[in-house]
Amino acid sequence: MLGTMLDTPLLVSRILTHAAERHGQSTLTGFVGDLQPRTSRYDVIAARAAATAHALSELGVTRGGVVAVLAGSRNEVVEAMFAVPSMGAVILPLNILQPRDVLASALRDNRVSVLLVDPELIPLALEVTAHLEHVRHLVVVDSDLPPAGGDATGGASSARIHALETLLDGHPTTYPWPDLDERTAAAIAYTSGTTGTSKAVAYTHRSIWLHSMQMCMAESAALTSGDSVLTTVPMFHVMSWGLPYAAFMAGASLITARPRPGQALVTGRDLAGLLATHRPNKMATTPASLQRLLRWLENHPQPVGHLGEVLVGGSALPEALLDAWVERHGVTVLQAYGLTESSPIATFARADPHSSATERRAQILGQGRFPAGVQARVVDEGRVLPDDGWSVGELQIRGPWVTARYLGDAATDRFVDGWLRTGDMATISPKGYLDVVDRVDDIIASGGELISSVELEHAVLTDDRVADAAVVGVPDERWGNRPLVLIQLKSGANATARSLWEGLHGTLDLWKRPDHWAFVEDIPRTSVGKFDKREIRSLHASGAYAVTTISPGTTR
Amino acid sequence: MLGTMLDTPLLVSRILTHAAERHGQSTLTGFVGDLQPRTSRYDVIAARAAATAHALSELGVTRGGVVAVLAGSRNEVVEAMFAVPSMGAVILPLNILQPRDVLASALRDNRVSVLLVDPELIPLALEVTAHLEHVRHLVVVDSDLPPAGGDATGGASSARIHALETLLDGHPTTYPWPDLDERTAAAIAYTSGTTGTSKAVAYTHRSIWLHSMQMCMAESAALTSGDSVLTTVPMFHVMSWGLPYAAFMAGASLITARPRPGQALVTGRDLAGLLATHRPNKMATTPASLQRLLRWLENHPQPVGHLGEVLVGGSALPEALLDAWVERHGVTVLQAYGLTESSPIATFARADPHSSATERRAQILGQGRFPAGVQARVVDEGRVLPDDGWSVGELQIRGPWVTARYLGDAATDRFVDGWLRTGDMATISPKGYLDVVDRVDDIIASGGELISSVELEHAVLTDDRVADAAVVGVPDERWGNRPLVLIQLKSGANATARSLWEGLHGTLDLWKRPDHWAFVEDIPRTSVGKFDKREIRSLHASGAYAVTTISPGTTR
Repeated sequence: MLGTMLDTPLLVSRILTHAAERHGQSTLTGFVGDLQPRTSRYDVIAARAAATAHALSELGVTRGGVVAVLAGSRNEVVEAMFAVPSMGAVILPLNILQPRDVLASALRDNRVSVLLVDPELIPLALEVTAHLEHVRHLVVVDSDLPPAGGDATGGASSARIHALETLLDGHPTTYPWPDLDERTAAAIAYTSGTTGTSKAVAYTHRSIWLHSMQMCMAESAALTSGDSVLTTVPMFHVMSWGLPYAAFMAGASLITARPRPGQALVTGRDLAGLLATHRPNKMATTPASLQRLLRWLENHPQPVGHLGEVLVGGSALPEALLDAWVERHGVTVLQAYGLTESSPIATFARADPHSSATERRAQILGQGRFPAGVQARVVDEGRVLPDDGWSVGELQIRGPWVTARYLGDAATDRFVDGWLRTGDMATISPKGYLDVVDRVDDIIASGGELISSVELEHAVLTDDRVADAAVVGVPDERWGNRPLVLIQLKSGANATARSLWEGLHGTLDLWKRPDHWAFVEDIPRTSVGKFDKREIRSLHASGAYAVTTISPGTTR
Repeated sequence: MLGTMLDTPLLVSRILTHAAERHGQSTLTGFVGDLQPRTSRYDVIAARAAATAHALSELGVTRGGVVAVLAGSRNEVVEAMFAVPSMGAVILPLNILQPRDVLASALRDNRVSVLLVDPELIPLALEVTAHLEHVRHLVVVDSDLPPAGGDATGGASSARIHALETLLDGHPTTYPWPDLDERTAAAIAYTSGTTGTSKAVAYTHRSIWLHSMQMCMAESAALTSGDSVLTTVPMFHVMSWGLPYAAFMAGASLITARPRPGQALVTGRDLAGLLATHRPNKMATTPASLQRLLRWLENHPQPVGHLGEVLVGGSALPEALLDAWVERHGVTVLQAYGLTESSPIATFARADPHSSATERRAQILGQGRFPAGVQARVVDEGRVLPDDGWSVGELQIRGPWVTARYLGDAATDRFVDGWLRTGDMATISPKGYLDVVDRVDDIIASGGELISSVELEHAVLTDDRVADAAVVGVPDERWGNRPLVLIQLKSGANATARSLWEGLHGTLDLWKRPDHWAFVEDIPRTSVGKFDKREIRSLHASGAYAVTTISPGTTR
């Protein structure tokens, strides 16, 4: 017996229309060129999204067609993130930091016919689309074409080049958004490829809706129309964690940071500038960005009391960093855990008020609690382990905003009985709090014991002289594997491997302490700013690091 | 092109399992008999719900079957609200205050075979089920049967009588909850019949899920695992506004008040007692209950600082009442608007922080803002009016937790082009805030102008001597209709119609002021505690009230 309730599909177009109707005065701020701000009201964004849909339709985009974006975070990207799914097509924000062949594969695999391009990235776009005949239109998201542009074609690319603003001219600011099956693909996101080849998932209108509601729930990001949220997470990284959709649903204003041209990351200085200018009450960022900002503020103090809560994700948050933010700036930092495959929010770390102080400490230092929408379990060799807070296994999850497969049915071994294998080793507490110990591939099997590389990194980071630290396992004849740590010292700081090793006394058991130490200028990172541990292991194997080895026996 | 995300259905069983797994320590407190509290943990509720499903299954309940409940709010009712939908059947909480023939119709129309009964209500259950042969089992939600019970049948009822606890004995505390289509009916709710015959809607698993997420959103009720919520809204009234499902989703603890046996409403004294004992930080109630509690506290002060927010709905909140709670007790009162047909939450009145002080005042005195899940418009004679904050028309709504029809396809005239006609005259502001002027049937058409009966009631209530006031329109030769106000004075207070009429100077325009005044001991109310204005008009027509008529001319 079916109920009597309306079968209203959950569609992205409804989020857009709602934002325009009820939160027209809320604003989106993006940046162009050398960080020039551009602020638009949500009703204007909605009008431009409608015109964008008309323009794309004229370029031949139809239902199910994939429109790609090669751009930093700017308002036109968000407009396209609403326009394209709402018209029944699929948006694909490309990670501009990935290698050219990976970008070309993504365009080829999804038969992309229209590519939206940041003016700064036209040369890259021309190179990537060379010989891709199905890419028929490059739309530069600006008023003017660069001098070499016009209606000309560029190099080996057979695509016509247009200026977006010219295409929009004269189009209506409303669009008859179609009624779609809510399971229709709305957006494609590629994984960062930390563990191998980059794989893609396709979010649905339904998954975006449910994930957005989750982001607005009081025990998650708690977005409201009173919020102003700064995000440093690029649109091409899990749609900036789905924030634009959630912000439009709530009517929260959004500021989408981007690095200066030519840089991979937003600097601490630029972040401080954004805080001073926009005074957001919430920020979504990574531990690495938060670390850079903290270091900048050490020497350039400014009040940050407007920041109520900072949401961090992408990698585990060192306790020292969490404490520094609370103690020096009175700012609460909340961890979240997720994956491209889970839209991404799977947990959110707010402490349970009915827990002891010790439990609460673990809850906020871990990755957070699973909501009703995300089922989770830890599994070891096919056996489901109890949620007891200490049994370590691979985390597996499922739910309405978790993917069931990859596009093209790649990597089917990542799924088992309808559960997604996250590749993270973790525990779940009796109250449903997640603690990620390490990546399956990064955990160090040493003499029958498992050592978390993340735990070692956080321990080394407690030394004031250390700016950053990355740990990997390297082969060892006796123990199988032993830890190597790459140390990046703070500018002006001095330290020997021996002194750092000794500084771990009381923090780390003797057998866990890194045997191998290397001082470096820079730690290799992936295109989304995480440590690239595969690269580190490979560089080490090729003898690229000057390593000091400390044998525990020598201290006795 | 469909996306890759899991097609996990949104099911009530998942909310229950989640609450048991992640929020097992949160508690539900209900009351039995003469208000004896019974507190259970959510993991225990889940275990008992599983056993209940086994027991009901043994009694022949299958998928699509309807299980009715005739009981005050107690834990077994909430257990059934989870068990019955989770097993694929449909729960029907009957309004115990409705006439016997209405209850019998509900049982008959839904072919109910099992009726769960509060021990206190066995005589009513026997009477109502007399001659209803399809009701085969009466399950008394207690350990023992009353003396006359046993396995015997009762009077003209052919049903067997069981004690729930006996049925549960020996059943497993887990149940293989089936995978269902999320559009499956989960619960049936009858409208209060304020505007005519009672009609029924069937909530789906999907609508309950989405409505629960909405209730947890930060700009709605913002439920979290830290909350302790007292509700005075009976389970048989729109499932206590859907609170049990939302509370279990969030892990919020819940206290479900009920009136003493033989009483229709929870008294101010009992409410004060519940606050003192349980110290909830949130309360869900009606303006009438809040009024009774305020009056009790006037003479029996107690600290209520633990109450962070009170959610009120069911009828419009008088400004005087809102102000009294803030000024005397520092308690924030938030209005919500909804209908049985909308699960019920359609709006929630949190002020928009980007609005002027005047706008914000109107926002919190009105019924609140529509979320993305509820589309709304005001319509006058088929014409959609602008959301300008002053154009008055009938409010129409639609969305995934709004009904598309009534069961049995009754009252099809309440739907137009996929929109539900609410029967409320209202305005919507440019920012999406609702202001309900009056019920379509209660608004007073006087000489070509519309007078809101609610506005008059709130104006009269500003007089300190008035405990309660209800206004209806009565026929008038010259103006078509003119207002009649029933006044219930505070105990010990003295007032003449003339003095009250004069007290409206500066508050109400002369032409709006009530012409007809009657002092009464009690104002007729419906089974859900709203003024029964049809009854008042009918009593007035039969000459039941001693009316003083004031002609405006006489004051000049």
